Amino acid sequence: MGLQHDYPWVKAPVLIGAPMRLISLAPLAVAVSHAGGLGFIGAGTEVHDLDAHLQEASRLIRETPVVGSAADVLPIGVGFINWGADFDTTVRTLEKYKPAAVWFFAPYKNADLVQWTEEISNATQGNTKIWVQVGSVHDAVEVARLCRPDVIVAQGSDAGGHGLERGAGIITLLPEIADALKHEGFEDTSVVAAGGVVEGRGVAACLALGSEGVVMGTRFLASTEATIAAGYQRAVVRAKDGGINTVRSKVYDTLRGTTGWPERIGGRGIINQSFLDAKDGKVTKENMDAYAEALKKGDDGWDENGRLTTYAGTGVGLIDRIKPAAAIMKEIRRQVMDIELRTSKRQSRI
Amino acid sequence: MGLQHDYPWVKAPVLIGAPMRLISLAPLAVAVSHAGGLGFIGAGTEVHDLDAHLQEASRLIRETPVVGSAADVLPIGVGFINWGADFDTTVRTLEKYKPAAVWFFAPYKNADLVQWTEEISNATQGNTKIWVQVGSVHDAVEVARLCRPDVIVAQGSDAGGHGLERGAGIITLLPEIADALKHEGFEDTSVVAAGGVVEGRGVAACLALGSEGVVMGTRFLASTEATIAAGYQRAVVRAKDGGINTVRSKVYDTLRGTTGWPERIGGRGIINQSFLDAKDGKVTKENMDAYAEALKKGDDGWDENGRLTTYAGTGVGLIDRIKPAAAIMKEIRRQVMDIELRTSKRQSRI
Repeated sequence: MGLQHDYPWVKAPVLIGAPMRLISLAPLAVAVSHAGGLGFIGAGTEVHDLDAHLQEASRLIRETPVVGSAADVLPIGVGFINWGADFDTTVRTLEKYKPAAVWFFAPYKNADLVQWTEEISNATQGNTKIWVQVGSVHDAVEVARLCRPDVIVAQGSDAGGHGLERGAGIITLLPEIADALKHEGFEDTSVVAAGGVVEGRGVAACLALGSEGVVMGTRFLASTEATIAAGYQRAVVRAKDGGINTVRSKVYDTLRGTTGWPERIGGRGIINQSFLDAKDGKVTKENMDAYAEALKKGDDGWDENGRLTTYAGTGVGLIDRIKPAAAIMKEIRRQVMDIELRTSKRQSRI
Repeated sequence: MGLQHDYPWVKAPVLIGAPMRLISLAPLAVAVSHAGGLGFIGAGTEVHDLDAHLQEASRLIRETPVVGSAADVLPIGVGFINWGADFDTTVRTLEKYKPAAVWFFAPYKNADLVQWTEEISNATQGNTKIWVQVGSVHDAVEVARLCRPDVIVAQGSDAGGHGLERGAGIITLLPEIADALKHEGFEDTSVVAAGGVVEGRGVAACLALGSEGVVMGTRFLASTEATIAAGYQRAVVRAKDGGINTVRSKVYDTLRGTTGWPERIGGRGIINQSFLDAKDGKVTKENMDAYAEALKKGDDGWDENGRLTTYAGTGVGLIDRIKPAAAIMKEIRRQVMDIELRTSKRQSRI
């Protein structure tokens, strides 16, 4: 029961690295777990190279063990975009490496997750815990009934990258999901918050909301261990006023050719010229061509007049430095402790 | 400095009743202040009957004083929708009643608020404090520079009723605004959170984010003192999965003829047949006619197949009972205390 039981190396508050496709690979996932969190590799839709990523993670962990983790489990997780990931390759690879958790997201329908849950649990003798990301109360309850996952990730509308086109922020989503799961008899299911948390105040807020752990994606875009272009990282550090200067849309999936996503889902990213040129979300040939040209510019494709995809959440305005994952997590833990000590003092005066 | 200094009757945590147009009138505003919060009358765009509302509020407060309030100030606030409210009538009426605060929202441009701030402050000898609601960091800083308000209300995307069509939830908006104001030298400006808070977990989360007080609108829709149709209230209690079953749109302003709003603003309400019939937000004559017919049905115009405007935030799914404002606030204070005591115990073990 509980995250600190299932992942005995993690410290409170439980900080989780989001499985960002192409960006959160072995170096970042392992760094988060080394620092007392739970890191996830973002396999996404591409599982042909998952074996290589897990092999690298295994090597990094052999070199520097994650103190407190069990010998038969790889102390990181792997995230999948279920509509696109190859099932048989996934099961075979997970059986070999036994990561501590898998994270499911965006099946065409929730019922598709039943087979994923059953076969992965069997192949790993239950060592690999099942996490499912949802963006609504409806999906949380349906997934709980169908799969009985260990963890529901409640993703709010402030999240960067892919998520529901329309939904609530975690301020209401997390409590409503927690109440609904309890009401339906799933009080053993852990609920963790994702979407808009980049520093200590957000983590402390999620703990007050009842979250057992807190997921961060956007914050780790600006970590030294992220597999990410320097231009993308600079754009993340530069962006301010995150609610105004990011937008959820399907424009970047169109421009990049990452089609196949369920209709209900879009990606939040920093607004740039590609988005501004796509009137009402319609992408013209000129826009496609300009995008292809921007790609050739490398890091400069993310400059002030840039065009390249810059997925990030509304918390991007609170990030102003690139740091190692461990330093990010240490700073956040100190901020949370300061906030909670202030709360304690206020309480003790009452 | 600080809300408990300026409004000496308020208790911690500072709970604020949002100035909901047509709904938060003297009975609700006074009930919130009587219960140790700060209630706001929602004058909105219509100030011709503001004198009558303030006269009623004065009478209610003479009958049952708000303990701790100063004799020369009416211990409630008044909210205005600045693009529509008549300036001269407003100043004259506020001079007569001296409410503790005014709350500005939705000017065509922020510079319009300079005259409002100056003349109201002069007319009330500074007894009426200036609150300004914003939805972005840009507006918070611009308003602070132009008007030096006492309070900035940071309204997140989960809020019900009118707000920015596109913006962040309070999980990121509140900290980014607080940091920006401090950075620009406005550390004396109080920042309070609005949008998505309906119970104790949300209030505790806002306090962790650094909010000095917390605004609630949607929660008070289901209060006995709200001036609201029984059908509307039943729809609020019935709604679940608030992020999915509410939407921000301009459809209801069109249907009700409440035009004149700045283009950047839309209203969040519970999805019903009127919205579903408005494909891509376009309102047809059939839809207008059906709306007019629904109006004639009274409370039944909000039934399961209803069409009438039901503004509410994403927190609506967490509300399941109509109660007096004082009972709502008492319950929330108890919930916040429980959460903070749990936090204290966790801290004391570390």
